[in-house]
Amino acid sequence: MRVLGIDPGLTRCGLGVVEGSVGRPLSMVAVGVVRTPPDLDLALRLCEIERGIEAWLDLHRPDAVAVERVFSQHNVRTVMGTAQASGIALLVAARRGLPVALHTPSEVKAAVSGSGRADKAQVGAMVTRLLRLDAPPKPADAADALALAICHIWRGSAQARIDAAMAATGRTTR
Amino acid sequence: MRVLGIDPGLTRCGLGVVEGSVGRPLSMVAVGVVRTPPDLDLALRLCEIERGIEAWLDLHRPDAVAVERVFSQHNVRTVMGTAQASGIALLVAARRGLPVALHTPSEVKAAVSGSGRADKAQVGAMVTRLLRLDAPPKPADAADALALAICHIWRGSAQARIDAAMAATGRTTR
Repeated sequence: MRVLGIDPGLTRCGLGVVEGSVGRPLSMVAVGVVRTPPDLDLALRLCEIERGIEAWLDLHRPDAVAVERVFSQHNVRTVMGTAQASGIALLVAARRGLPVALHTPSEVKAAVSGSGRADKAQVGAMVTRLLRLDAPPKPADAADALALAICHIWRGSAQARIDAAMAATGRTTR
Repeated sequence: MRVLGIDPGLTRCGLGVVEGSVGRPLSMVAVGVVRTPPDLDLALRLCEIERGIEAWLDLHRPDAVAVERVFSQHNVRTVMGTAQASGIALLVAARRGLPVALHTPSEVKAAVSGSGRADKAQVGAMVTRLLRLDAPPKPADAADALALAICHIWRGSAQARIDAAMAATGRTTR
């Protein structure tokens, strides 16, 4: 199973592709960031994010997409832009008929580190270990995107099968 | 000048097309709502909103699009979905090279009623009067979309000309 993890953001949108399955070693296919300049018009920034994600889907052909769930509680100053970027990520994946899942930051941290309150450094260290990389991926948004993909693979084949069946009928459980 | 106003929302996305210019009578071209079912998957709801707005752009060929600016302060429960829907609206318009502007609810209220603190009923009544309609458009999201379009036309030709020039260079002032 190949999963594209997306850590949405306007200035830096983290992207990470991981291949693997439950109980077998994971491997990193690609990691990177789509950046858009803060002085560019908001609507044009969203267009660039759409183009960037489309290019990754064309190149890496994932079986599923996992997007970080955005909450309105924190980072009030940037949360609206993050929500808009996440909307573009969900749209682009669903438009292709790909199963899309949202995972919370706590779910992702718990999946890779065993604790929902792990810090950035712990997540980076675990991603590095699990994917047998030489160094933690930078920036943190890129490491987070890989952690999202790992979380999605590990949360499992059962849920993925349910989602695929539901997606085929146009409805999902989430 | 023909303007499509969009009052973004997941359950009801208001759309209104108004034609006119500063100092001349305004006329309503179309008004309506794109609805998506609350039990449908979020990503698929965003796809339906994209399709709905695309269809309106194809049919009514506006010269510009005005979208309500979403704030994170109010309606915490629904604000993330509203932000995601607004992101889709901005994307769809900008992808076609149309000038897109964001107006705050206060700017819109002030434009049509003279007060930034006008209530829904006042806005509905002024939209009805300005567009010489028989009754206020319903639901309120549809009336708000028309008010957005009127606000955009009245905020004027000078700003529109600046935006068009900036859009041609790929940057805007906002």
